[in-house]
Amino acid sequence: MAADKLHGDLVAALTAIPLIDPHSHIDPYAPTSRTLDDILGYHYYTELAHSAGMSQAPLAADVPPVERVRAILGHIDRFNNTAQYRWLIDILQSFLGWESNHVSAADADALFAKSEAVFGQADWEQQVFEKTNLEKIFLTNEFDDSLEGFDTARYVPCLRTDGLVFQLNLPVIRERLAKRTGIQVGDAATLRAAIRKLFEHFVAHGARACAISLPPSFTPVHIPSAEIDRVLSGFEPNDADAAVRASAVFWTIAECCREFALPFDLMIGVNRRVYRNGVYQGQDLFDSRTSLVQYQELFNAFPDVVFPVSVLSSFQNQELVSHSWIFPNVITSGHWWYSNIPTYIASDLRARLQAVPKTKQIGYYSDAYKLEFVRPKFGMYRSVLAHVLADEFVRPGILSETQAVELGRQLLRENVRQIFKI
Amino acid sequence: MAADKLHGDLVAALTAIPLIDPHSHIDPYAPTSRTLDDILGYHYYTELAHSAGMSQAPLAADVPPVERVRAILGHIDRFNNTAQYRWLIDILQSFLGWESNHVSAADADALFAKSEAVFGQADWEQQVFEKTNLEKIFLTNEFDDSLEGFDTARYVPCLRTDGLVFQLNLPVIRERLAKRTGIQVGDAATLRAAIRKLFEHFVAHGARACAISLPPSFTPVHIPSAEIDRVLSGFEPNDADAAVRASAVFWTIAECCREFALPFDLMIGVNRRVYRNGVYQGQDLFDSRTSLVQYQELFNAFPDVVFPVSVLSSFQNQELVSHSWIFPNVITSGHWWYSNIPTYIASDLRARLQAVPKTKQIGYYSDAYKLEFVRPKFGMYRSVLAHVLADEFVRPGILSETQAVELGRQLLRENVRQIFKI
Amino acid sequence: MAADKLHGDLVAALTAIPLIDPHSHIDPYAPTSRTLDDILGYHYYTELAHSAGMSQAPLAADVPPVERVRAILGHIDRFNNTAQYRWLIDILQSFLGWESNHVSAADADALFAKSEAVFGQADWEQQVFEKTNLEKIFLTNEFDDSLEGFDTARYVPCLRTDGLVFQLNLPVIRERLAKRTGIQVGDAATLRAAIRKLFEHFVAHGARACAISLPPSFTPVHIPSAEIDRVLSGFEPNDADAAVRASAVFWTIAECCREFALPFDLMIGVNRRVYRNGVYQGQDLFDSRTSLVQYQELFNAFPDVVFPVSVLSSFQNQELVSHSWIFPNVITSGHWWYSNIPTYIASDLRARLQAVPKTKQIGYYSDAYKLEFVRPKFGMYRSVLAHVLADEFVRPGILSETQAVELGRQLLRENVRQIFKI
Ligand SMILES: [Zn+2]
Ligand SMILES: [Zn+2]
Ligand SMILES: [Zn+2]
Repeated sequence: MAADKLHGDLVAALTAIPLIDPHSHIDPYAPTSRTLDDILGYHYYTELAHSAGMSQAPLAADVPPVERVRAILGHIDRFNNTAQYRWLIDILQSFLGWESNHVSAADADALFAKSEAVFGQADWEQQVFEKTNLEKIFLTNEFDDSLEGFDTARYVPCLRTDGLVFQLNLPVIRERLAKRTGIQVGDAATLRAAIRKLFEHFVAHGARACAISLPPSFTPVHIPSAEIDRVLSGFEPNDADAAVRASAVFWTIAECCREFALPFDLMIGVNRRVYRNGVYQGQDLFDSRTSLVQYQELFNAFPDVVFPVSVLSSFQNQELVSHSWIFPNVITSGHWWYSNIPTYIASDLRARLQAVPKTKQIGYYSDAYKLEFVRPKFGMYRSVLAHVLADEFVRPGILSETQAVELGRQLLRENVRQIFKI
Repeated sequence: MAADKLHGDLVAALTAIPLIDPHSHIDPYAPTSRTLDDILGYHYYTELAHSAGMSQAPLAADVPPVERVRAILGHIDRFNNTAQYRWLIDILQSFLGWESNHVSAADADALFAKSEAVFGQADWEQQVFEKTNLEKIFLTNEFDDSLEGFDTARYVPCLRTDGLVFQLNLPVIRERLAKRTGIQVGDAATLRAAIRKLFEHFVAHGARACAISLPPSFTPVHIPSAEIDRVLSGFEPNDADAAVRASAVFWTIAECCREFALPFDLMIGVNRRVYRNGVYQGQDLFDSRTSLVQYQELFNAFPDVVFPVSVLSSFQNQELVSHSWIFPNVITSGHWWYSNIPTYIASDLRARLQAVPKTKQIGYYSDAYKLEFVRPKFGMYRSVLAHVLADEFVRPGILSETQAVELGRQLLRENVRQIFKI
Repeated sequence: MAADKLHGDLVAALTAIPLIDPHSHIDPYAPTSRTLDDILGYHYYTELAHSAGMSQAPLAADVPPVERVRAILGHIDRFNNTAQYRWLIDILQSFLGWESNHVSAADADALFAKSEAVFGQADWEQQVFEKTNLEKIFLTNEFDDSLEGFDTARYVPCLRTDGLVFQLNLPVIRERLAKRTGIQVGDAATLRAAIRKLFEHFVAHGARACAISLPPSFTPVHIPSAEIDRVLSGFEPNDADAAVRASAVFWTIAECCREFALPFDLMIGVNRRVYRNGVYQGQDLFDSRTSLVQYQELFNAFPDVVFPVSVLSSFQNQELVSHSWIFPNVITSGHWWYSNIPTYIASDLRARLQAVPKTKQIGYYSDAYKLEFVRPKFGMYRSVLAHVLADEFVRPGILSETQAVELGRQLLRENVRQIFKI
């Protein structure tokens, strides 16, 4: 989409809004990149380089970072058409003083050296917050992650529950849970007690959400107590009870979200390990044979729990728009992973703005692993948002430019504050 | 999409075409609104207000209309971004002399009073017809609705068959059918006789279509007579024969459509009561795990029956485009419910205009419950249609402006006249 | 989409790139049309005319060609809104000196006569190549097609395997295979030997690809040898082993693609004979209840085989984009059949350009049965491509006009050369 004056003005006004990023995978003990290797090591680059022909050899742990950077930049001319490449250029320009609109293999060593110097500054974390206009960012914590030693007002804890729901059959998960809670889970009562302990701990440390990613086949249902007792009484190798147990744990977590008034982020539709020899975090895909209707029992049973829902494709987005339009407790949340490119953001966002109450839309989250990615990702979103606001609201005379920016502020900031009680 | 001179000219020309609205839920005995309460009581507003946080208390029957209007307008600042809100503004501007581009809670009492006065005029119905440039509008009649006492040339009857197909197990339906037809249905022969009686009655009263809405799982097949006899011989509480009986009744109705030369409107994909505590008419959703291929036996078996097909999502629209492109008896029909917002209309319409014979497209219907909604809904459609005609036909030099308006006339009016024999 | 100077310049530059068309159904012994009947006999026109009301009588073999042309043009005013109609106008303008932007029934006889004269020129084939800027075009050969007597550098053979995979239960297929290879297939070893013979023969004659079209339900899996032996040991009327045998043959073909280093074109999602009384080649549709995840075992098992994948709908395109982004061996290939209209090309192409490495995208193929269609179909694609390049890359300042043309060249030509080793 071509830039123009109105678009530029809207982008500028939207960029002035301080960000609260409601979903990331930032490590609060190492939030920023040490070198360009941490930037190019993001799975978006390793998987695109690998998909475009790079072997996985440069990704081995013992490869010197600068060599990995050379290898990935050595393939970048094969995928410099992508949105992800634009994030990289934005990072180079915003943080490393890069002036060109492109980068190539020949730039590897100079950029690596520059990144070491810049990212190594003592106040780099603070600089990134400022250059990003970032106020707070949510984490995604394992249930036994430490929540001490960092500023939870800045790095907001969020309880990730994938392991509890889908891997409780693994002894290591049960042992970690027992170690954290002091409770050995063996029936419905101990399950609830252990999960409540986690919630108490997280809420006491400022957690503002619970989150989980879910496979396309998942259909949560209520499991009676006696049945929960049964599927928690023993774990067999073939685990025929996996689906029932997953529902049982999931439902118990939803009950705790209700009790502790935490929104439950549902990230729906990911199939894990589809490409089994893919790079780390580059193995998962989705399956279009799925429907949000699979969650109808849940949405009906928990009217008091807010469910920010993320989906992976545009056809699921149309279901999400309709569900958010009808269910008071369903919120549209961000543009996730395979839908996080401008063309899908644009069409998905247009539909949300035309059919979902504006108070029920979480515009965007970065999903970042390193703080440097918050700026380019939100920048991409704001550019698309500005186009949609200009085309659908300002140019047809529905909203003034100022009103359009207020609508943007609602999506970017105010709804995050209200939904997560910040 | 931004307005421009060409767009404005096309909209003006399209607006001059008298409308025949081929699907609505107008009550011919009370076609217009009495007050703003009838406008805001439309499920699009009650469900959006409820979705945005309004309790259902104001929707109770004993709440005074003005209080309900206050409650819904009291929440409208939460969904004044939506396409449905634009319909409301259009109604206020077109019918109530409203000059602002916005409305808020503070306007409730004044607007309610104004609406009482305006809508209460003796010739209001006629005024709405004129301000809407509306010539005829189709009804959706239950099989035992009265078809007397109104002008069937203006309000065209249409036989709705949902109850017959999906609820014949209910004694109340069978009794109403027996009362209307004098026939007690108990086997294939009496089923056919009763349905033929309904068709005779409706056709004698000017009916021009038969219609039904269908769940995503429905797959009609031909049921042998002996099997129909069996599933009509008794009705058990758990109704294990429901699917077979639905196919049997549906197929018999299709046979009558063939005999009586009535088009059979199929509105495909709605899941009823997904949000069980939703507002009235605000409980239904769709399921993307469905395909028009489920109707292949039907489309093959009835080459002489015209099937105007409506779908609920853009991915189903691509199936519909392809089916209409291939099957002579499949017609694309309107933009239904969750797909009835500008962005989905635009993309669905573009595909239809590029791939389906122009004689096989019913452009739009209002689905209105009150006459006042025909104008804003068709207005939204015409605006999108004008954009698509401008971008895809006029600006690339394929059609002149006059030819583009003729193409619009075909979709808006001529196809309705030809397909429904008006 | 409106034309402008930038768009025009990009189209001109893209049109100057010589084409290698990587998929067609050209008969190398009769590559061009004899008359307008061969143009209008293309299934896109016969099915649209039939869908719009034409009986199939004019399509009978004994109807004189000029009468068939009269019949189809006699219905063209019902579908002159379509993209396929624009191809026809392009052919008339490019090859028959037609100057109008439209054609109607009244033009039938004059155009037929003109076509006979023009297409009958001795050097017509060469003229079409030149007017199309066409360098090479791939064929789609049955396994026992002759590969002699034509220039395989210009008409590149491609082994079509639909019959082997899905119809080996038919005696006629097994007999043709035995006749071609000298091998009677009866177990895993003879199956492999026979297929290897086909590959040897095709590769020796310059074949550059293997291809197959696949139904939505197909899920290829590896079948153990003993099981292959069993399903090839006998063929029963009801053929309960059809799915297992299809997987066995398909997998064996994939193994030969690996051994002979041939890309395996997968054209995924077509349901055959949905409209059973449709015109020839106008009976097939798709089913949206399908997923590329069904191919995960295949993509994992054959990392060294390149799979150019075509899909039939936009929602499958989003899956394809994600799979190509992740799997090194999955290539996006063209815009197939029901997705081959400008609006779907535009949205599908936008997503591919934003998320798939540019080296992994086969921009387009004609799927033509007669050479005259290569020009209008590629012309449609280039126009859409120019719009996307202008809007997404040139106007936002990401690429210069020259760089954008280079990106187009990669999609149109360079990737075809590299992937098919030309
Ligand atoms: Zn995440
Ligand atoms: Zn309706
Ligand atoms: Zn083909």
